Amino acid sequence: MSFHERLTARAGAIQAFLDASLPQGDLPLEQGLRHALSGGKRLRGYLVIEAAARFGSAPEQSVVTAGAIEALHAYSLVHDDLPCMDDDDLRRGQPTVHVKWDEATAVLVGDALQTLAFELLSEPACHDSPKVRVALIGSLARAAGAEGMVLGQAQDIAAETAGRALTLDEIAELQGNKTGALISWSAEAGAILGEADPAPLRVYARALGLAFQIADDVLDVEGDTATAGKRLQKDADAGKATFVSLLGLDAAKSRAADLVDDACTALDPYGATAENLRDAARFVISRTS
Amino acid sequence: MSFHERLTARAGAIQAFLDASLPQGDLPLEQGLRHALSGGKRLRGYLVIEAAARFGSAPEQSVVTAGAIEALHAYSLVHDDLPCMDDDDLRRGQPTVHVKWDEATAVLVGDALQTLAFELLSEPACHDSPKVRVALIGSLARAAGAEGMVLGQAQDIAAETAGRALTLDEIAELQGNKTGALISWSAEAGAILGEADPAPLRVYARALGLAFQIADDVLDVEGDTATAGKRLQKDADAGKATFVSLLGLDAAKSRAADLVDDACTALDPYGATAENLRDAARFVISRTS
Repeated sequence: MSFHERLTARAGAIQAFLDASLPQGDLPLEQGLRHALSGGKRLRGYLVIEAAARFGSAPEQSVVTAGAIEALHAYSLVHDDLPCMDDDDLRRGQPTVHVKWDEATAVLVGDALQTLAFELLSEPACHDSPKVRVALIGSLARAAGAEGMVLGQAQDIAAETAGRALTLDEIAELQGNKTGALISWSAEAGAILGEADPAPLRVYARALGLAFQIADDVLDVEGDTATAGKRLQKDADAGKATFVSLLGLDAAKSRAADLVDDACTALDPYGATAENLRDAARFVISRTS
Repeated sequence: MSFHERLTARAGAIQAFLDASLPQGDLPLEQGLRHALSGGKRLRGYLVIEAAARFGSAPEQSVVTAGAIEALHAYSLVHDDLPCMDDDDLRRGQPTVHVKWDEATAVLVGDALQTLAFELLSEPACHDSPKVRVALIGSLARAAGAEGMVLGQAQDIAAETAGRALTLDEIAELQGNKTGALISWSAEAGAILGEADPAPLRVYARALGLAFQIADDVLDVEGDTATAGKRLQKDADAGKATFVSLLGLDAAKSRAADLVDDACTALDPYGATAENLRDAARFVISRTS
């Protein structure tokens, strides 16, 4: 199976799991939840399932954790797209929740998606051991909260407000919080599910997360809106410092490629059994959406 | 110790615990977190601590769970006060987060407070047993999410949009989700912490939750803004059906008093050891804020 076939298969399993987990009513909240959880590459869910498989977890079990991280990620997108945040109309090729319904619905959909993530991780279907479930919940909360993803969002807003261009180190820190923390968690969750040492996966995932963000900056400049399914050029339009604006396009691409090499090397202790994770690292710098 | 002295003492302990749990930085996010978690009666936290005490849990331990429910409650207030929701300027006698900072900060503060609630419950300080912690997390997620509190919010918005006055049963259902679910959880959490049967507490807490909401409707009509620390008369101004508009003021008060009696009676199996919880039930219909 090629990487793309495998990614598509995992995305399908995650979608089926999430569809069965969501309320089926017709309130804007309930429709909005289903809308916000449709589509997407499911890269974070893929990382969970493939990392967990490396430690012997069956996809039928790890799909619960994959669904949880995709719900958490979807919450962050719905709130990030709000008019008071990035004010985006388009996401995954569809109108954003506040455009299709209204802002109140988007606030509630994001709120409920975050709750859903923790609810899924609390259930026995996630893992037999309460100790493992509570380890997943605690580590996800630390990655997502005021010292992780939300801190990254706040740092991003503070940089814009200050009107001062960030340095490369500052951007790396900000992005490490905003995007990197959840990507790292996704890979580490596989080790937590397998009750194994997450250290090699952490090195892999940190390099992957940074490569992902550099590739996002490259995509913002070089990409095609129809293919990406979201508004592009927004950082350049806003005059924000990015990896591309600071390094230049070629050096940014080269930096991302080096990070992907680092990510793959970090998996050396796992040998050939980690090839599906190496494929994911290579994918993040080749993607067009 | 009188009930009010006890409530004040518990609120002080919860505040001290939360102050120590919050990031100390100076970003609007970090200041906003501390602002949103200041003040308030801490009724939900009181219920946790007093119910847990009934089953032998020390306040030094149950304060973690009390802090978690207060963080969850504070998240719901910050988001509910947003311009796209209830658009409130005043909360606990202070400007709301989006007024003091901005809407983006209010969205992020609410998001991070929700995460904090689950993070606190995941930590060993909450309870030695991962099984207990994961039971608290799962039940809180169900009470707070798209089939609990957030559903209640969505039902409230849907009723306004439809422009149709709700029936008494519909209001009771809506309020049971919007407010009752978290109040019920607070009392039940005490039993979960004590690894005891939560059934009597559930009956108590459901009656208490409904009495609380009827008393809120009474306060909305009869209260004083300076004492309440929040905008009043807003349901009447919006022409919303409330317990008071449907039952009349006297019958609403009498209904709330009956519910408080029901709540107290539900605690009969616990005898005199549940008097602190009965005091809380009597308090909800006598409060002025």
